Amino acid sequence: MHREVSSSLGRDTLRQFASKNPIFTCIISYTATSEIPGITIAGAAPEMIQYTSPADAEFLYYGRCKCIGSVPATPDGKPTPALITRTALRLGNIPALVIDAGSKVKPSIPLISLGLSPGENIELRDAMPPSDVKQALDHGRVLGKELAKLSDMVVIGESIPAGTTTALAVLVALGINAKFRVGSSMPVSPHELKNKVVSAAMKRAGVKAGDVGSPLEAISLFGDPMMPAMAGVAEGALSEGGKVMLAGGTQMAVALSVLKMKGIPMKRLCVGSTRYIARDRTSDLPGLVREIAPQVPLLYCDLHLDRSSKPGLRAFAEGFVKEGVGAGGASIAAMLGNQKITGRKFLNALEKEYESSIEAAFESKASS
Amino acid sequence: MHREVSSSLGRDTLRQFASKNPIFTCIISYTATSEIPGITIAGAAPEMIQYTSPADAEFLYYGRCKCIGSVPATPDGKPTPALITRTALRLGNIPALVIDAGSKVKPSIPLISLGLSPGENIELRDAMPPSDVKQALDHGRVLGKELAKLSDMVVIGESIPAGTTTALAVLVALGINAKFRVGSSMPVSPHELKNKVVSAAMKRAGVKAGDVGSPLEAISLFGDPMMPAMAGVAEGALSEGGKVMLAGGTQMAVALSVLKMKGIPMKRLCVGSTRYIARDRTSDLPGLVREIAPQVPLLYCDLHLDRSSKPGLRAFAEGFVKEGVGAGGASIAAMLGNQKITGRKFLNALEKEYESSIEAAFESKASS
Repeated sequence: MHREVSSSLGRDTLRQFASKNPIFTCIISYTATSEIPGITIAGAAPEMIQYTSPADAEFLYYGRCKCIGSVPATPDGKPTPALITRTALRLGNIPALVIDAGSKVKPSIPLISLGLSPGENIELRDAMPPSDVKQALDHGRVLGKELAKLSDMVVIGESIPAGTTTALAVLVALGINAKFRVGSSMPVSPHELKNKVVSAAMKRAGVKAGDVGSPLEAISLFGDPMMPAMAGVAEGALSEGGKVMLAGGTQMAVALSVLKMKGIPMKRLCVGSTRYIARDRTSDLPGLVREIAPQVPLLYCDLHLDRSSKPGLRAFAEGFVKEGVGAGGASIAAMLGNQKITGRKFLNALEKEYESSIEAAFESKASS
Repeated sequence: MHREVSSSLGRDTLRQFASKNPIFTCIISYTATSEIPGITIAGAAPEMIQYTSPADAEFLYYGRCKCIGSVPATPDGKPTPALITRTALRLGNIPALVIDAGSKVKPSIPLISLGLSPGENIELRDAMPPSDVKQALDHGRVLGKELAKLSDMVVIGESIPAGTTTALAVLVALGINAKFRVGSSMPVSPHELKNKVVSAAMKRAGVKAGDVGSPLEAISLFGDPMMPAMAGVAEGALSEGGKVMLAGGTQMAVALSVLKMKGIPMKRLCVGSTRYIARDRTSDLPGLVREIAPQVPLLYCDLHLDRSSKPGLRAFAEGFVKEGVGAGGASIAAMLGNQKITGRKFLNALEKEYESSIEAAFESKASS
């Protein structure tokens, strides 16, 4: 077993989630909550935020974006985590399907639609109607069943700007003490701003922390369309006898709480993330998972980005971006599925991918 | 090997296309050509035609329809061929994904969108812009590659009303003598009406039989969005080393002509249909396949519907419906993949499915 991959519940659980034919899915979505100034660094300018998820999805398939002319990276070269995901999928020859749960801009790819609208700004109104929560769960479940017939492990990643803020709101509404424990794409999570948004949303809805008993109701009030879609796909795949990896950061806690509430057996379920999230001092994914579903292992992998020659990649180890687009889960799936994909090999491939996409685009921009 | 399944190129080809983990896909689409009176019996009333494909798609997953209140059957009980497809998928535990290539009404299921608009009435205007033909091919190809990583055989069915008329128009434009050789859901194909529509369309576009050199141009002028989507998915899957079965009737000839024009190797490609199409005296699928791609075997299966106790199912053997929604291909995939699925077992399961969906709905309607 790779030294790069660890598990919160011991190395035996790694063996359980090793798969020769995993399938990777990424749920792209949108919440107008992301339009609150300062809440996300996804998207260089405010009007660009809506392009974040579709750009990620296009990058997965093409290694470049069609919906935006620019590179999916900050001006100083910190790339989208989709770069890691794409590297993992290519190294592991892992098939990928993108699921649309209410993204605002549609990527130019074949896209599995769940027929959902974007989520609302939770400061101003309910996130989504209960009928949309139900449809996300129902359609997700139908899809998850089919995916589990195709593969013994379904990895479910996500891309939604401001998703940690809506996750915080849902967890707090459910009475889970999540304040100062959700992640961020910034080195220091803007916890105060997130808490303020959550307080405003709860005041709007007239509820207090712990007032909401049902995760589905909490999602309708304060969540986003990604959440029930992820829970639905997971439930469907588990019900078909498949293994499931929720691939991401603290937002996974919401999907866990839905599955727990529904009484879904979680023996074949894990969370997969990067070490940069699992060991993050500004958030607490391990604690949240333990609190909601102690039997579910948190798998995480060390991508050795601190050793990279590329400052843009080293930034991940320094607290920027850290996770997203299922980067950690895809890397774990690739490594556990094939012993030949060592940490060194992965880093080499990642740097090559960085050169051919991000650096090449910066150079052609500079020379034009 | 099952006696129920035959091949135009000998029984050895059956072994080649036996798969333990096939995936079934169904492309749903629409052409306004279907609004020409008398051109299709899909849809009981003219305004119902647009619901045909989404109703088929919903029936595949749920065994009932959500977008229409009624049963997907003619008033006298002749069911949609999706009944056969659903039976095959369930018996064979074959995963299914539905691909939307410009359907007008969207089914309430998770749906892989290729981002296409419905096709136009070819009597009145071009079927679709060349950019849509290209997008269907491109997105189809991306999807086909991922599907071939998941499964060693991709079965591609279709549901589009009036699809044989647009197929006829494309084939004639390409100089393939297809008049009086395309199939129909009616016992006697309304060849005269179809020929009239094709003549009107060609007059509108100012071209004569055989004038159009490129299948892609012919599709843009006279085809429908299903055609390039099917060719794209097939090309993607073949390029990834997968096997592909084009599952349907005479419309498959169009996809074959696209693949041939593009120079795609066809060694791992077959056409799969029902015996009711392969032996149909009012159309000529075997001849069309032989003419366009003589190396591609036509597989077909005998579902023994003539022996059914249900008049609605016996109608298939008497020339009604005959094929559609990939019914023949799905049945072949189920039978070749599992020797235990005998003809008798299949017919029993089909009759049970008929009772629990079509008959039950008729009864509840009668008693309400």
